[in-house]
Amino acid sequence: MHVLIIGAAGMIGRKLAERLAKDGAIAGNEIAKLTLVDIVPPAMPQGHSGLATSFTVDFALMDAPQALIGDRPDLIFHLASIVSGEAEADFEKGYLVNLDGTRRLFEAIRLQGTSYRPRVVFTSSIAVYGAPLPSEIPDDYITQPLTSYGTQKAICELLLADYSRRAFFDGIALRLPTICIRPGAPNRAASGFFSNILREPLAGKEAVLPVSEDVRHWFASPRAAVGFLLHAASLDLERVGPRRSLNMPGLSATVADEIAALRRFGGEAAVRLIRRESDPIIERIISGWPRDFNVRRAQELGFVADTSFDEIVRAHIEDEMDGTGE
Amino acid sequence: MHVLIIGAAGMIGRKLAERLAKDGAIAGNEIAKLTLVDIVPPAMPQGHSGLATSFTVDFALMDAPQALIGDRPDLIFHLASIVSGEAEADFEKGYLVNLDGTRRLFEAIRLQGTSYRPRVVFTSSIAVYGAPLPSEIPDDYITQPLTSYGTQKAICELLLADYSRRAFFDGIALRLPTICIRPGAPNRAASGFFSNILREPLAGKEAVLPVSEDVRHWFASPRAAVGFLLHAASLDLERVGPRRSLNMPGLSATVADEIAALRRFGGEAAVRLIRRESDPIIERIISGWPRDFNVRRAQELGFVADTSFDEIVRAHIEDEMDGTGE
Repeated sequence: MHVLIIGAAGMIGRKLAERLAKDGAIAGNEIAKLTLVDIVPPAMPQGHSGLATSFTVDFALMDAPQALIGDRPDLIFHLASIVSGEAEADFEKGYLVNLDGTRRLFEAIRLQGTSYRPRVVFTSSIAVYGAPLPSEIPDDYITQPLTSYGTQKAICELLLADYSRRAFFDGIALRLPTICIRPGAPNRAASGFFSNILREPLAGKEAVLPVSEDVRHWFASPRAAVGFLLHAASLDLERVGPRRSLNMPGLSATVADEIAALRRFGGEAAVRLIRRESDPIIERIISGWPRDFNVRRAQELGFVADTSFDEIVRAHIEDEMDGTGE
Repeated sequence: MHVLIIGAAGMIGRKLAERLAKDGAIAGNEIAKLTLVDIVPPAMPQGHSGLATSFTVDFALMDAPQALIGDRPDLIFHLASIVSGEAEADFEKGYLVNLDGTRRLFEAIRLQGTSYRPRVVFTSSIAVYGAPLPSEIPDDYITQPLTSYGTQKAICELLLADYSRRAFFDGIALRLPTICIRPGAPNRAASGFFSNILREPLAGKEAVLPVSEDVRHWFASPRAAVGFLLHAASLDLERVGPRRSLNMPGLSATVADEIAALRRFGGEAAVRLIRRESDPIIERIISGWPRDFNVRRAQELGFVADTSFDEIVRAHIEDEMDGTGE
């Protein structure tokens, strides 16, 4: 099969590409061709079979999606998007990339005709939800975003469901939890500290905690996120029915739970590297975010979450620190 | 104030234009100019003040919305859309008119700049909901449509909320119940019989009832619908908050309720004009439709529904039959 990853240079895209190159197959189907696309050059995965090719393409360009679909990939992972902060700061760019780019991709598939019906796995976000929210969000709760990014994701979900219902493709949208521990340098996204307070102390560096320890949030490790994408790639979508957007299972945990896990892996020395510096703006932003979900539906469909922060920290040490801790 | 009605030749648009021309004002604000637009020539309302003008414009044309917004109407009623059946039969036309047309209208407003922030009243539909549905749909139930029409309406609702949040305009979307009694000739929409079995017998004509009498549905009279639009035009939207799509209050009633009202106005002779002709296809379509809503929110905001089918039949006799019954 031919697999296309749009957004292959991103954190999840890169890990997905590495995993596909390593496995060489999805659910027993050999990957004969792996095409990696992003606006910056995607890294070629280590140990790939020689069949991977990469393209550097601005997804927002009018004819980019059409060019990508021309040779009819069987499986399309669409992970490309402008992030939340940028979509809020640049209204036109957010809609151009996150909505128009995605819609043109869907249209390019439709216009191939009825002989072509690929699987499309789209990464959506819990940003489709906006306050007020119940303490545990059920699957049938309204998607009423409070950002342009969340609006664009919610619209793409609706399009994906309609294009799937009409059999133009077979799509599934995964609403990913906040990814933790994000590898790489600390970032200044409002959610960044959730990763920073683990990743930095584990590497012997200081990190800032801007909220209180009782703040609860919804997490998945990068490893779990890649697992969701792979499962979605081969899942029987007849079982999913017409509601094609799924809240992925996650770990509902507090900052205190994170710190307890850090203590088990890094000791008191690591915990002491967390500097408490209250930030009322971040406290306020976080207060409108989802804290917990009822994900019975996704679990019944076979999606598997991390079960503890120990598991999340262990995955980080194995995948990002060569299994050695510091 | 300058009022623009897009979709002024439709059933609701025509009644709204007549009402505005008769009142000459909205919530005490004099209507200095009334612009009526539709793809077929809108009828000039009787007794208008001389300030009404009409345009025949295909809303789906690229620059039509921009032309309509050029002289900055203060209040825009956007009622124009391809109906459900046509949007399902013609995928491209449905998206072109219902989504792209609406988005271009919103964009034309945004591109006027920050000195222009009109009120936009948009008619959405309960077609944004798809089965499975709770017996009484709450305001925070997921909008998961099962038609392209419902998808397009749900997307426009999301856009309207985001454009309003960013203060490009001040928008509100009204999800109208099924309008009953629709004036005019019987149509073959799946919902047509709800009106046919009242309107036709009241006029001494036969009508077909394709479902059983215990079928429950959600209704508003044309008069109530015009009332919703007028109320939305002057409502303080600060009170509505960021969730700008409202389920309008309606009357949850059964076919038996309809027939009982018909009996009170037209006697047994009228009821005998209903011919029972079971149609499994219509039964099946109807079974996926909403039956009842919790509309506390809309009621608290001052929207007022019909309270009985007697009221609905009486409004029809007064507004469509010169108050004379047959």
